[in-house]
Amino acid sequence: MQYLCRIRYVGTHFHGFQAQPDKRTVQGVLTEAVRAFFDVPVAVTGCSRTDSGVHAEDFRLTLALPDGSIPVPADKLPQAIAPFLPPDLSVVEAIPVEDGFHPRYDAVKKEYRYLIYAGRVMDPFYRDRAWHVFVPFLPDALERMNEAAAHLVGTHDFSAFRAEGSPTRSPVRTVFGCSVVKSGSLYTLSIEGDGFLYNMVRIVTGTLVAVGTGKLSPEGVKKALESRKRTSAGATAPPDGLYLHHVTYHEEDFLKKTRE
Amino acid sequence: MQYLCRIRYVGTHFHGFQAQPDKRTVQGVLTEAVRAFFDVPVAVTGCSRTDSGVHAEDFRLTLALPDGSIPVPADKLPQAIAPFLPPDLSVVEAIPVEDGFHPRYDAVKKEYRYLIYAGRVMDPFYRDRAWHVFVPFLPDALERMNEAAAHLVGTHDFSAFRAEGSPTRSPVRTVFGCSVVKSGSLYTLSIEGDGFLYNMVRIVTGTLVAVGTGKLSPEGVKKALESRKRTSAGATAPPDGLYLHHVTYHEEDFLKKTRE
Repeated sequence: MQYLCRIRYVGTHFHGFQAQPDKRTVQGVLTEAVRAFFDVPVAVTGCSRTDSGVHAEDFRLTLALPDGSIPVPADKLPQAIAPFLPPDLSVVEAIPVEDGFHPRYDAVKKEYRYLIYAGRVMDPFYRDRAWHVFVPFLPDALERMNEAAAHLVGTHDFSAFRAEGSPTRSPVRTVFGCSVVKSGSLYTLSIEGDGFLYNMVRIVTGTLVAVGTGKLSPEGVKKALESRKRTSAGATAPPDGLYLHHVTYHEEDFLKKTRE
Repeated sequence: MQYLCRIRYVGTHFHGFQAQPDKRTVQGVLTEAVRAFFDVPVAVTGCSRTDSGVHAEDFRLTLALPDGSIPVPADKLPQAIAPFLPPDLSVVEAIPVEDGFHPRYDAVKKEYRYLIYAGRVMDPFYRDRAWHVFVPFLPDALERMNEAAAHLVGTHDFSAFRAEGSPTRSPVRTVFGCSVVKSGSLYTLSIEGDGFLYNMVRIVTGTLVAVGTGKLSPEGVKKALESRKRTSAGATAPPDGLYLHHVTYHEEDFLKKTRE
C-alpha cells in the first residue's frame, strides 16, 4: 500500500529533505509523524533532495506501508495526519499509487521558483523567503535577465551551473523554460526542466542576478554555458529564496499505475 | 525636525505598536533604534495602534528630533537606520514634514486587509499570517460575503462591530469600501474607512466568515449593524490574518506642510 503525497514546507528550520542523524529534516520529521500515526514503520521516499533553507510549495513523496497494514482512505489522510505534523510542514493531498511508482524517477518535469527582493532595505515579510540583493539592478535588468535566461533553454551540458565536486553523473539536462517576472521590487525567476544538477537553480539565479546588476552580459551567460566551467558562471544564490514549485508526472502513466 | 516614515513589520513577535513596559513593541523597538542611531532622544508617534500579532505593510509614523540636532537626509534614513533594526521591522521610506503634521490625525483613509485561509489543512507559508478556518465554506461563500460586506459601506454607527467595553468615543465611522476576493483557498478581505473602532476589522472578518460558512445570512449582517449590539455580530477573528495595508493623507495638505 503506497500513497503519493503532495506536501508543502517552509524550509527555514529544516536541514533539507533527506534524513540525517541528529538533524531536523523533512524526511525525518515525516517518518516519525507517519510512524506515530500508522503505528507501523513507513518508508518515506521523496521526489528530490532539497538543501537546508529551501522551501517547497509542491513536493511529492510516497509513504509505503508494510503489507497487511490497515490503510486510511487516501482523501482523509491529509487531515488525519495534520495533528502529528509541525506547523512548518503540511500534507495537502494523498492519492493511492501502486508499488512500482517512484516519486523521483517517474517525475517528468520539475519547476522551481526563486524570489529575489531588490528593495533598498530588507522586506520583513520576505525574511528567510527571498534573497535580498542590495546591489542596485540596472534599469533594463528585467530585459537583460530574460535575454540571458533564454540561452539556458534547451538540452545542454550544464557543467558550468553545477556545484564543484558534484558526483560525476551526466551534466546534460533539458530546461523547458526559464524566465523572470518583476512585481514592485520583487523579481521571480521560474525554471522548468526534466531535472536539475546539484545547486543548478541557485547558480542560475546568482548568474542572472549578475546580469541584472551589470556584472555580466546576457551574452556572457551563453559563453559560460558553452565553457562548461563553473568559474564562468555567477555565484551560488542563498537557499532562502528557492522554492520547489511544481512536479509533473505523466498523467496516463500515473493513472495506469494507480489502476493496476 | 520631523520625518514621516513608512514602515513594514511582521507583527507575530511584537506586542502591538504601542510601547509598554517590559514588552517588545514596535514603538519601543523603534524608539531604541533611533535613539541609538541619532544619539539623542527621538519621539516616535504612530498612525494607529495595532494589536499583538497584527502586521503592517504600510504603517506611518513620525520621528521627531530635538531642536538643534543634525538631521540625516530623509532619503538616506531608511538604509542608514537598517543596521539598528531587527529583521521583522523595516523603515522603507522617510520624508521631512513640518512639526504640525500628525500621522494619526492627518490620516484621511486607512485600508486594512485580512487573509483567511480555507484549505483543508494548514498552509505552512501562512502560519501566523492568515486565519486558518477549517469550517467548510459554502460553494457561494464569496458572493454571500460580498453581499454582506456591501451592507457595511457608508457612514454608520458600528457599535455592533466594536469590542465590548471600549472607551465611549463616537461609534460612527465611514467605510468607503469593503469587499472580498478569492484566490485558490485564500479569501482576502479589504476594508477602507476614515477610521476603525477597536477590533472593528477583526469583528467584521469574523462576521463575514460566519456568512461564508452559513452561520449567518448576508441580511443578518445588515440587521446586526442596525441592532448596534455586539452580540448580533460574529466572533472576533484572530490577529494573525490582519494587515494594515495602506494609509492615505491629503496630498495638498501634506505637501503644504512639508513646504512650510
